[in-house]
Amino acid sequence: MTERVVLAYSGGLDTSVGIGWIADATGAEVIAVAVDVGQGGEDLNVIRQRALDCGAVEAYVADARDEFATEYCMPALKANGLYLNRYPLVSAISRPVIVKHLVRAARQFGATTVAHGCTGKGNDQVRFEVGITSLAPDLKCIAPVRDLALTRDKAIEYATRRSLPIETTKHNPFSIDQNVWGRAVETGFLEDIWNAPTKDVYTYTDSPAFPPVADEVVITFDQGVPVALDGVPVTPLQAIQEMNRRAGAQGIGRIDIVEDRLVGIKSREIYEAPGAMALIAAHQELENVTIEREQARFKRTVEQRWTELVYDGMWFSPLKRSLDTFIEDTQKYVSGDVRLAMHGGRATVTGRRSDSSLYDFNLATYDTGDTFDQASSKGFIEIYGLSAKLSAARDVRFGNGPDLGAGTLPIEATSGTGA
Amino acid sequence: MTERVVLAYSGGLDTSVGIGWIADATGAEVIAVAVDVGQGGEDLNVIRQRALDCGAVEAYVADARDEFATEYCMPALKANGLYLNRYPLVSAISRPVIVKHLVRAARQFGATTVAHGCTGKGNDQVRFEVGITSLAPDLKCIAPVRDLALTRDKAIEYATRRSLPIETTKHNPFSIDQNVWGRAVETGFLEDIWNAPTKDVYTYTDSPAFPPVADEVVITFDQGVPVALDGVPVTPLQAIQEMNRRAGAQGIGRIDIVEDRLVGIKSREIYEAPGAMALIAAHQELENVTIEREQARFKRTVEQRWTELVYDGMWFSPLKRSLDTFIEDTQKYVSGDVRLAMHGGRATVTGRRSDSSLYDFNLATYDTGDTFDQASSKGFIEIYGLSAKLSAARDVRFGNGPDLGAGTLPIEATSGTGA
Amino acid sequence: MTERVVLAYSGGLDTSVGIGWIADATGAEVIAVAVDVGQGGEDLNVIRQRALDCGAVEAYVADARDEFATEYCMPALKANGLYLNRYPLVSAISRPVIVKHLVRAARQFGATTVAHGCTGKGNDQVRFEVGITSLAPDLKCIAPVRDLALTRDKAIEYATRRSLPIETTKHNPFSIDQNVWGRAVETGFLEDIWNAPTKDVYTYTDSPAFPPVADEVVITFDQGVPVALDGVPVTPLQAIQEMNRRAGAQGIGRIDIVEDRLVGIKSREIYEAPGAMALIAAHQELENVTIEREQARFKRTVEQRWTELVYDGMWFSPLKRSLDTFIEDTQKYVSGDVRLAMHGGRATVTGRRSDSSLYDFNLATYDTGDTFDQASSKGFIEIYGLSAKLSAARDVRFGNGPDLGAGTLPIEATSGTGA
Amino acid sequence: MTERVVLAYSGGLDTSVGIGWIADATGAEVIAVAVDVGQGGEDLNVIRQRALDCGAVEAYVADARDEFATEYCMPALKANGLYLNRYPLVSAISRPVIVKHLVRAARQFGATTVAHGCTGKGNDQVRFEVGITSLAPDLKCIAPVRDLALTRDKAIEYATRRSLPIETTKHNPFSIDQNVWGRAVETGFLEDIWNAPTKDVYTYTDSPAFPPVADEVVITFDQGVPVALDGVPVTPLQAIQEMNRRAGAQGIGRIDIVEDRLVGIKSREIYEAPGAMALIAAHQELENVTIEREQARFKRTVEQRWTELVYDGMWFSPLKRSLDTFIEDTQKYVSGDVRLAMHGGRATVTGRRSDSSLYDFNLATYDTGDTFDQASSKGFIEIYGLSAKLSAARDVRFGNGPDLGAGTLPIEATSGTGA
Repeated sequence: MTERVVLAYSGGLDTSVGIGWIADATGAEVIAVAVDVGQGGEDLNVIRQRALDCGAVEAYVADARDEFATEYCMPALKANGLYLNRYPLVSAISRPVIVKHLVRAARQFGATTVAHGCTGKGNDQVRFEVGITSLAPDLKCIAPVRDLALTRDKAIEYATRRSLPIETTKHNPFSIDQNVWGRAVETGFLEDIWNAPTKDVYTYTDSPAFPPVADEVVITFDQGVPVALDGVPVTPLQAIQEMNRRAGAQGIGRIDIVEDRLVGIKSREIYEAPGAMALIAAHQELENVTIEREQARFKRTVEQRWTELVYDGMWFSPLKRSLDTFIEDTQKYVSGDVRLAMHGGRATVTGRRSDSSLYDFNLATYDTGDTFDQASSKGFIEIYGLSAKLSAARDVRFGNGPDLGAGTLPIEATSGTGA
Repeated sequence: MTERVVLAYSGGLDTSVGIGWIADATGAEVIAVAVDVGQGGEDLNVIRQRALDCGAVEAYVADARDEFATEYCMPALKANGLYLNRYPLVSAISRPVIVKHLVRAARQFGATTVAHGCTGKGNDQVRFEVGITSLAPDLKCIAPVRDLALTRDKAIEYATRRSLPIETTKHNPFSIDQNVWGRAVETGFLEDIWNAPTKDVYTYTDSPAFPPVADEVVITFDQGVPVALDGVPVTPLQAIQEMNRRAGAQGIGRIDIVEDRLVGIKSREIYEAPGAMALIAAHQELENVTIEREQARFKRTVEQRWTELVYDGMWFSPLKRSLDTFIEDTQKYVSGDVRLAMHGGRATVTGRRSDSSLYDFNLATYDTGDTFDQASSKGFIEIYGLSAKLSAARDVRFGNGPDLGAGTLPIEATSGTGA
Repeated sequence: MTERVVLAYSGGLDTSVGIGWIADATGAEVIAVAVDVGQGGEDLNVIRQRALDCGAVEAYVADARDEFATEYCMPALKANGLYLNRYPLVSAISRPVIVKHLVRAARQFGATTVAHGCTGKGNDQVRFEVGITSLAPDLKCIAPVRDLALTRDKAIEYATRRSLPIETTKHNPFSIDQNVWGRAVETGFLEDIWNAPTKDVYTYTDSPAFPPVADEVVITFDQGVPVALDGVPVTPLQAIQEMNRRAGAQGIGRIDIVEDRLVGIKSREIYEAPGAMALIAAHQELENVTIEREQARFKRTVEQRWTELVYDGMWFSPLKRSLDTFIEDTQKYVSGDVRLAMHGGRATVTGRRSDSSLYDFNLATYDTGDTFDQASSKGFIEIYGLSAKLSAARDVRFGNGPDLGAGTLPIEATSGTGA
Repeated sequence: MTERVVLAYSGGLDTSVGIGWIADATGAEVIAVAVDVGQGGEDLNVIRQRALDCGAVEAYVADARDEFATEYCMPALKANGLYLNRYPLVSAISRPVIVKHLVRAARQFGATTVAHGCTGKGNDQVRFEVGITSLAPDLKCIAPVRDLALTRDKAIEYATRRSLPIETTKHNPFSIDQNVWGRAVETGFLEDIWNAPTKDVYTYTDSPAFPPVADEVVITFDQGVPVALDGVPVTPLQAIQEMNRRAGAQGIGRIDIVEDRLVGIKSREIYEAPGAMALIAAHQELENVTIEREQARFKRTVEQRWTELVYDGMWFSPLKRSLDTFIEDTQKYVSGDVRLAMHGGRATVTGRRSDSSLYDFNLATYDTGDTFDQASSKGFIEIYGLSAKLSAARDVRFGNGPDLGAGTLPIEATSGTGA
């Protein structure tokens, strides 16, 4: 029986050529799989037909937008997933959902290999291949660009020679990946890291320099997930889409960063993620109000490891799943409303209210109604500082006490007359 | 011999009354110590005279602005010190430098006790007292407001009765603390966490909603410390002051947050820190360019602990100092220029260049000149993903393999004619 | 209505006197609660009667041994809970189960206060009071020794004067706490930390210096919990008891340590925990075989925090519970047999087998059957080491390259004749 | 000019053949480098001559024992470096010192490539190659066994055919690596992880089952480094050697473990490290006495990462060096005496004394002289437990309060007559 290869198909030049290129190189039949994660662009039916026209024996397209929003974006929101505290993992979380559909198709169509269009120097090749091996340890992986010498020039030549129904002349100056969680732009003149991005880099956001009138939204969360905007119930997908629209209009969520790739190099990336960044800002502040201090502090350690793992292609790994159970447990009370002011690139929380708040007005206030027993503080400080005090006493004993500066006082010291 | 008490003196009502209040309650002589950490306001000579007029036997005032900027703000910058990833530790880092001067004065004037004006429910009492005990384990601490029942009403009554040269009628609706690193505002109507801050809360920043024309600055760092702005050499203090001015004009660095106090309660705080936030943004991005990945990842763990310790009053603790040696070691190559665009509340890095950059154009580029050996990637991924793969194979063996969704494909799957 | 106080009752002098002492000091009725956590000693009925004879209005005794073993010791085993990597949390995990019964009794008998016999300088006062406040935020706490000046001398005088049915002359040179998970001994001549412990310190273990013939046990775990010893099914309680007996006979589990108390001081403690230490040794090695590397590495971070929290009295805290969900998720495959050789103080794993093992003979072996693809390694190393290499190249560029020692070779370098 | 290759030379079959094998395969001249890290065995002069006889154009042998002990073993001791909390990094720390001599020789002899005898599935290939690339980014690496198909059978055939002066018939059932810090044994029947090790596996340790009379040693540390044994000054090398002898005689330091290799597989290893394990036990306890609590807690996090990095071949990486500065700072007061009882496989600290101890008898004691102010504890607990209490109150409010068990009390509850 002929071997079958499932190819992650975007509809673009590289993967359109890839269909025939793989078939030629391996003798296998190629099944094209395209997954809609909210990247916009062409209709899925058009893409499916193109795959078949380019020689695919089967074509599978899936609308995974709700699945992506619910099972991938929401966990990233609960984890406040920001790589280097900045990048909301746009591409990193879309690869696993695509992988799931690739594996599903491989099972359905009896394929033994999965192919993808990544190069050999990025993160995505790792995310695809480790993801696939983590869902289906028996499947093999192949990357035509990396493993079968499919350069851009060869692709154009191939498409022309075979008259494939794909544009070969358009040349985007950037390499772009986008989905409902955000948009990533790299290469081109951005590779000189002293160059500022130009306006044409952005499409999800309008310029923050010339914003429309300020916008204000009340986001209602239930256990870490946005469930209503201004009182109107929304699904996770709708929440992201609507916030993309409103925050995008205000120029929120533009990111320009040099980041550490898993493959050991640094690269310069521009991201746009208006909805994601606005939702994370709101979510973090609601956590500030509803999560206990020590739980919140350790959650930051968990968030960092979660984010590194997801960035590094380990979405389906055992550690990632165990971290998810921790994060999920912390979200039990992350419910309530956050009022978010959005204007000129800024998403600012200006109010929060929650039935499960741990903020206690009567403990916090300095006005009438104060219930905090200040007398406890003296004993607290005494014992809280004891180990530091013992250590300090040792420093003094060993002549390592503090350097208090010059032996004489500054001239500003003046004797008074006393009382 | 009469006991002597050193009092942290602000020049305001509470500590002005505190001079006599402490003397009355303890029989001790009171020495007033005022430290200039860039809080602005009255002249130090005026404050010194007032202390003497209020009954202090000695008055010590010190211009600690350069010391504060160099020895306290710069370490906070190197640590990217942001509590809850948001708050730049404005008050937390000023307490230790004040403590140092209090202890120095205590030694100079033979005092056995240090007094401060904090209440019993905040962080600052802990920072003062643990700081003092860490520099001078033999000194005692006292807080008139907390320990000697010095309420505001009693203070006004006392000042009036004794005709102290201090304003008693002015009532600020907020509790404010400020220094060159930033400004903290709390209490009043802000204690209702659903209330948005009003314009009168802010003084270090202009409104970001109506910014002047965009400003752009090139900040030069040497080993983590800003040494020039737009090519003009600056001291740390000058760097902060100048950035406060320029970033403040753009409304940068306003923060509205519910935070976890060390004493176990949540409180709502407004901060302004235009210079600090702009400098941290620039510093973080220069680190992205110059620090190796694993060093950067672990530094985040160190930064979090450093920030918690400093917030929690442990500036002089052994752990804080050991963390400093780690951070210092990471800054060896954090040198170079960062171009920062400032406009309407946004401080955005748009360019970076450094002789000690780890960004390698020839490794990162997808264009001519690419030196990255993509052939290595296949082996890398194979071994990098191996332990996850073995774990996945076990999942499959135990029937815990992935749920790939429904058994049949979506209707979008269509057979082609094959190639 | 008369106030009621629930007292944690041990049956000893302090708490027997405490019944009347509290009643005298507060006017409240006292309910005595004794909980069997496997500490041995007197019959619970005897203890109950003594409480009543000493003036308790109610006496509640509970056999909590199975509850303690299952709900407290097993989580500690799954967490490999060793404070300072040494101390198996003997007292720390018994306080929460006692707290639970105290709170239950308080609810049942309408008490508003809980009392315990701890001093004011140990960890247990914190564990009791934070535990109680975490289960019943409305209950108050009182400690007669700490708060009502109940010294040992006063207790003896009181017991004699009231003719309480309790021994007053016996004086144990040590302070001891014990339960089925182990035994803690402190104070007396052990407070001189240069003194070695003497034989009379120990009761759970025989001397390891003169052991009986070596013992070997096969422990079967199911998801982290021991379910059979040498093939005989056991409950958690039976597993601990039986391992206490067998490992104790071999002198296993003696610990002598200076530890950091929560209240800021260091104290010297002797522990015996033969069963706990043997079970943890077996459990750790089964984890080595069955848990994926990155999951195992992060679990160590979680274990440390879990252990600190439990030691520090935070058993019922939100963070502790979230960490439990993480740990529980890691135990899914920690099933299988461990063969443990026990002799002369040593508990050594000599074999392990598991259906869910991740050890793969065919990957590990250097003999026939090797399935590891060594060709992948070169690419792996190339990319794995890339960021360190780039950093090293920078060191060289900046003259910070390695110091390779003296410029000339040692005299041992000799030229050969060549091939 | 002829290329030159520096080969890490052990004097055994594989690397003796490797000299000619590399020359044949590459046309390069081979320089043999042998480094004495205390592995014992043949005289270095014999090894040098053999290298020359086998065709090396140069042979470099170095006695690196003191260098290894001082610059590699001592940092591991300060870090309490135990991978998986068990394995003292025996091989992991010897690779970097060998690497340093390889690079030095490469520079001296103008070589462009470094060769080593490792296979493609272990950790050591990574340690060698990443180490080399970190010291000399320009050097290339080659491994004849992995890259040039040098199997054992081919090696024997080659040695016989060329009449190399090397034993070809001896077949050790195990793969062994040893140095002064310990000894590692793997493969053979140990690959069945249910098999217990047999006696012939061990050479550094006598059987703990039949120990000589108990031995007791007082180890004096200065800033984390052993400087005297029983009062006799020692160098680091002497300390390790002498402790190897004395602890080895008592059967201390045998380890049997399944560990996670960097290359993604689990392997079974037997280690002997009598001196290392005894020194680490003593060092850890001296740290318990001399390091402040929070510093000690975070040091454990640092130790884990340090140990992982060193195990993973990152000795010369930037993060490892920054962690070293942290660790070094913690050792300032780790000075004093530890009395270690050694008998029958057990190394037990029975006493510790230090001028820089943080143990304070007067704070710890329950006897006369107690200086601890117990009155502070109530306030401490109140505030320390406050955030957990607020969280618990919320649980109750939301009906998630504790399950206290059945509604009725156990039958053991009995009413008394009251007082």
